[in-house]
Amino acid sequence: MRMTRSRPLPGHFMDIAMEEARAAARRGEVPVGAALSGPDGLLLARAGNRVEEWGDPSAHAEMQVMRTASVQRGGLRLADCTMYVTLEPCPMCAAAATHFRVGRIVFGAYDPKGGGVEHGPRLFAQPRCLHRPEIVGGVREREAGRLLREFFQRLRA
Amino acid sequence: MRMTRSRPLPGHFMDIAMEEARAAARRGEVPVGAALSGPDGLLLARAGNRVEEWGDPSAHAEMQVMRTASVQRGGLRLADCTMYVTLEPCPMCAAAATHFRVGRIVFGAYDPKGGGVEHGPRLFAQPRCLHRPEIVGGVREREAGRLLREFFQRLRA
Repeated sequence: MRMTRSRPLPGHFMDIAMEEARAAARRGEVPVGAALSGPDGLLLARAGNRVEEWGDPSAHAEMQVMRTASVQRGGLRLADCTMYVTLEPCPMCAAAATHFRVGRIVFGAYDPKGGGVEHGPRLFAQPRCLHRPEIVGGVREREAGRLLREFFQRLRA
Repeated sequence: MRMTRSRPLPGHFMDIAMEEARAAARRGEVPVGAALSGPDGLLLARAGNRVEEWGDPSAHAEMQVMRTASVQRGGLRLADCTMYVTLEPCPMCAAAATHFRVGRIVFGAYDPKGGGVEHGPRLFAQPRCLHRPEIVGGVREREAGRLLREFFQRLRA
């Protein structure tokens, strides 16, 4: 008998990131979620924004999944990993992705105001940038953007 | 009788940051240290680089002192604080200082290759930057730079 194993599809990881974003909204956090997959297609880490709960403005979903996965792997860099996140990473998280050597970033909504990948300092386009992840932006953009819009509409209501 | 209290001088905090940098070197880490002072001139947090020890490429001295101080103060932002660090902060730490609303950053050596304040993306000069700390660079620059040079010379020896 041959052993077979079904590989989760990339869509699966964006589903997890969306779930984490919705859970963050329920906790009163800005709804951003992330998932990090390893080379074998397995989930290494998942997290939602915890800035308010932890009183830590650096507790973005992306920082959490990168730290968790790197620490789990004993400091091994994440060049063979993909980070899925519902929103374009901010400059802090984009610069961190260079330190962690993340192989690929798949993100949902673009963030013209706070993004640091396709907007603002465009960190991976900087001449001194030491590591540039492959970038896939705008994946399920409308769904990811709707989550954020609904959250901020409720805040203002 | 009037109560008096001696305020520690700013130099005191840079001494602490230097001590943390030297301790980091002894642990085999790139020697960068930081100290964070509050509005009453008291030390809120001190830390050295722990990237190698923790297997966490985001464990820069600056990230640690900002997180520690913010969490200690229940999420209160750090607009009334000064962060002292022996090296110009990288783009990740500079962007984090915006999220934490750090009031002032005093740093030692300039970092033309990896810095993100006076070099590279110059994060606080970005038009979309939401908070710009007051910046004092080049404080005890030679001493801070010597620590780093000696560390890398020993590595290559």
